[in-house]
Amino acid sequence: MTITIAVDAMGGDHGPSVAVPAVLDFLALSPETRVILVGVAESIEAQLATHQLVVGDRLSIHPASQVVEMDESPQFALKNKKDSSMRVALNLVKAGEAQACVSAGNTGALMATSRYVLKMLPGVERPAISTILPTIKGHVHMLDLGANVDCTPLQLLQFGMMGAMLVSAVEHKDRPTVGLLNVGEEEIKGSETVKEAGLLLKESGLNFYGNVEGTDIYNGTTDIVVCDGFVGNVVLKASEGLAQMMGEFLRQEFRRNTLTRLAACICSPVLLGFRKRVDHRRYNGATLLGLQAVVIKSHGSADRFAFRFALERAQQAVMTGVLQRINNQISLTGKGLN
Amino acid sequence: MTITIAVDAMGGDHGPSVAVPAVLDFLALSPETRVILVGVAESIEAQLATHQLVVGDRLSIHPASQVVEMDESPQFALKNKKDSSMRVALNLVKAGEAQACVSAGNTGALMATSRYVLKMLPGVERPAISTILPTIKGHVHMLDLGANVDCTPLQLLQFGMMGAMLVSAVEHKDRPTVGLLNVGEEEIKGSETVKEAGLLLKESGLNFYGNVEGTDIYNGTTDIVVCDGFVGNVVLKASEGLAQMMGEFLRQEFRRNTLTRLAACICSPVLLGFRKRVDHRRYNGATLLGLQAVVIKSHGSADRFAFRFALERAQQAVMTGVLQRINNQISLTGKGLN
Repeated sequence: MTITIAVDAMGGDHGPSVAVPAVLDFLALSPETRVILVGVAESIEAQLATHQLVVGDRLSIHPASQVVEMDESPQFALKNKKDSSMRVALNLVKAGEAQACVSAGNTGALMATSRYVLKMLPGVERPAISTILPTIKGHVHMLDLGANVDCTPLQLLQFGMMGAMLVSAVEHKDRPTVGLLNVGEEEIKGSETVKEAGLLLKESGLNFYGNVEGTDIYNGTTDIVVCDGFVGNVVLKASEGLAQMMGEFLRQEFRRNTLTRLAACICSPVLLGFRKRVDHRRYNGATLLGLQAVVIKSHGSADRFAFRFALERAQQAVMTGVLQRINNQISLTGKGLN
Repeated sequence: MTITIAVDAMGGDHGPSVAVPAVLDFLALSPETRVILVGVAESIEAQLATHQLVVGDRLSIHPASQVVEMDESPQFALKNKKDSSMRVALNLVKAGEAQACVSAGNTGALMATSRYVLKMLPGVERPAISTILPTIKGHVHMLDLGANVDCTPLQLLQFGMMGAMLVSAVEHKDRPTVGLLNVGEEEIKGSETVKEAGLLLKESGLNFYGNVEGTDIYNGTTDIVVCDGFVGNVVLKASEGLAQMMGEFLRQEFRRNTLTRLAACICSPVLLGFRKRVDHRRYNGATLLGLQAVVIKSHGSADRFAFRFALERAQQAVMTGVLQRINNQISLTGKGLN
């Protein structure tokens, strides 16, 4: 099956200077996939020239004259940026010319424009953003990460369903475990919303583990961790901050004096191995779930290496039929239709 | 000024085997302070004997026949454990025989019993749990950490006030900065509750920085970070989990083969320096704010070294008059009296 991915080449902090070389790397590894680079043609062509790339069977350019800025409101982008690289990329997916869209642009605008252009899957109350985080045992999928700051129990249940379908598709796990993020393991813990979501998840037919706490995220207690977007966003960003701080402390200790600098040289392979394991770039590419097509959000500051992972995630989601699974699950259980 | 601290010697995972030696270390460093060890006399005496300690002017034992278990509900403890080491230690504070209580016991039970025995400061809507976390620049105080899973804007405002008074007292900062944890910097971000809390904080006369994001916690953007107890608890525990995971990855990389083990030996001073900087034991001792006396919660798994920090935090809070400051602030602004 040949897949086509529409890439918003202008999004993110670096625009085409990251998107274009990342696409180059991606195409080299994925001989069956096509990419449409969407954006200001001159900027894209300049980058293609730099990397001695030419458009061809597997790589084309689709023009878009506008760019959604990183600090623009979703409403402004929707109303005033109808020819933005983001919107045009999503239009290509809507028109069937591509099966997935990848963008490193403004998250709020990407979510709002995706909902507007692609529409949601029938029965899904709210779309969610899901990402992968490393754990001691491997990795975990966590959602929502900021699309919804207030959630109802039903929405949390649907996040659990969508997360489970994502994992069962891309990781070929039959019944992935779902944990509900809470302040304690006992059923009586947490806010009313979370308690009710726990009851719904228990009756859902999903492989519900029960409540999980913050520590469980990185312990890899479950395959999926469900939470509202406020909590998910704060945990994700706090984790980024903590990892940066620990990395900085380690660097500072190794730079303390000549002796410690020497020690750093001696154990550089070890430090490299460590850095590789905690390299957040390998986890780049959050999945917007609940839409009628695959949309992947790359981190705004992603580099060439990181952006490639977002492209691979898009390809994988299309190839494994994540959408169909979510659609089946939601319509089967009827959750959301009431 | 001589201070007396009532220590719940039976609380936590280790009971007197940690509390007693920690008190020994603490008394050696704080010649002006007295400690009353509260709990089952035989257990405490056995530990004193092990460490060749005797009771005297600065160290006494106060008997209590019961122990609050770590998994007991606050209601059960309140009703059925009237002679618990936790409750008796709080009674000693209430009776004026001690100025602060330190316990490593069940957090929920400690909070509920403290509220019942000591009562809250007039005007304070809800007590909060505040802790210190390391940052790239130094450290930050964060509250609430789990006492309140749902908060009103007014309660969040009061957390900001109490946090600011704590920091201005113990760190001699005139106008510490207060940040409101949110999913974005802009005022329009977040839930209705958080947005309203932002408005109240803006008008409060506190040195309000505005919204902060998860990354700002460990970047040390503000002196204080305010959030509801659900978010605070999850962030704190996720941070614990992430730090453990990173430590484990580092250990694994250094244990990979003979060469990497050798590298570990060579850079052991560096690794020791690093471990010291991220050592959570130095941050042990969460402050229960909003009560009519100083109550410090030590981590349940705290060891001798960590428990001492909780004792020091109690001493410091009493000596710097945190309670008076909070009382003044809350009654001055009248927030909570409406």
